[in-house]
Amino acid sequence: MGGPVIQPWPRKSSEQKLDCRIFKVRKDVVVNPRNNSLHDMYALDMDNWVNVIPLTPDQQIILIHQWRHGTRSVQLETPGGLMDHPGETPEECARRELLEETGYEAGELVHLGSVHPNPAIQGNLQHYVLATNCRKVAGLTLDHAEDIAVTLAPLADIPRMIRAGEITHGIVIGGFYWLELHRRK
Amino acid sequence: MGGPVIQPWPRKSSEQKLDCRIFKVRKDVVVNPRNNSLHDMYALDMDNWVNVIPLTPDQQIILIHQWRHGTRSVQLETPGGLMDHPGETPEECARRELLEETGYEAGELVHLGSVHPNPAIQGNLQHYVLATNCRKVAGLTLDHAEDIAVTLAPLADIPRMIRAGEITHGIVIGGFYWLELHRRK
Repeated sequence: MGGPVIQPWPRKSSEQKLDCRIFKVRKDVVVNPRNNSLHDMYALDMDNWVNVIPLTPDQQIILIHQWRHGTRSVQLETPGGLMDHPGETPEECARRELLEETGYEAGELVHLGSVHPNPAIQGNLQHYVLATNCRKVAGLTLDHAEDIAVTLAPLADIPRMIRAGEITHGIVIGGFYWLELHRRK
Repeated sequence: MGGPVIQPWPRKSSEQKLDCRIFKVRKDVVVNPRNNSLHDMYALDMDNWVNVIPLTPDQQIILIHQWRHGTRSVQLETPGGLMDHPGETPEECARRELLEETGYEAGELVHLGSVHPNPAIQGNLQHYVLATNCRKVAGLTLDHAEDIAVTLAPLADIPRMIRAGEITHGIVIGGFYWLELHRRK
C-alpha cells in the first residue's frame, strides 16, 4: 500500500474554550501544509472509554437500557464508561463498570482491541473488552445522575437486533465486530 | 426482552454555549426521573454524516489518508463527510463525497444502515453507503482546508488491517460490520 504522503498540520496556537465536565472544548489554529493556509479547528479533550461485551455462561449478552442526552432517547447498549480512575487498566475498568451498571461479576476478561471513536474531533481511545462467565452477584450501584435497566438477550440475536434498529449505538455496534474478529482467529 | 422501563429525562432549559463551526455545544438542564435531581448535560448539535465503502470492479477498496485534528495523526479511512447540502439523500451525499475526495465515480449504491455515532453527547446520524463498480474519472476536488491521499487495498485485507492497527477509526470500522451483515443476508 505504501505509507501516507500526508504531512502533519503544525499547530500555531491552542486554547481551551469551554469546560463541559466530561469533555473540554479546545480550539487550535493549524496550518494546512499543502497550501500554508491557516484554519481554526475545534476538538474535544476527554478520558479514554471502555466498553464491555459481557456474556453469561449460557451465551446471553448482558445489555442495559439508559436515557442518552445526545439523542434524547433510551438506548440499548453494552455497559461501559470513562477510564477516570488513575492507573486503571481497560480490563479493570470493564470489571468495575460491569458490576456497577449491571450487578454482574466478570469471569474471564479479554481486551479485544481499541479504536479512535471519532478522530476528526476526539483524540481519546475506545477500548473493547470481552467478559465471559459473568454471574449476577449484586444489585446496581448507580450514582444520582444515572438510571439504568438491565436486560439479557441471546448473543446470536445481536445481528438481527442491529438490523431491526433495536441497537443503534455506533460504538456498541463496533464492539460486536471486534468480537467477531476475535472469534474468527 | 420486554421494553425499556427507563423514562425520558425532562429538559428544564437549553442554551447554546459555543459555536465550533462544524458543531455547536449545547447545555441542557435535565431532571433524573428516578430521583428528581437536576443535572447539567452537554451535547453537540451537528449535521448527519455519511460514510461510503467504495469498491472497484476487482474488489479493491478505495481508502484515503488524511490528517485528523482530534487525534493529531494521519488516519486511513473510507471517504465520507457531512450531509450539509439541503435535500441531499445519504446515497447522493456518498456519491458526491466519493468523487470529491477520491476522483472515483460510484456505480451502484446501497444504503447499508445508520447508527447514532455517540448517543451520550450527539443526536446526529451516521449513514453507511456501499458503492460498487467505482471507476476513476477525475482528480480530487479538495477545498483549502483538506489534504487527502488516495490508496487502494484488497477488501479481503480489511480484517487484518484493523487487527494490525493500520485502521483505527471506530466509525469506519463500524461500517465494515454493516458490510458483513449485508453480505450475510
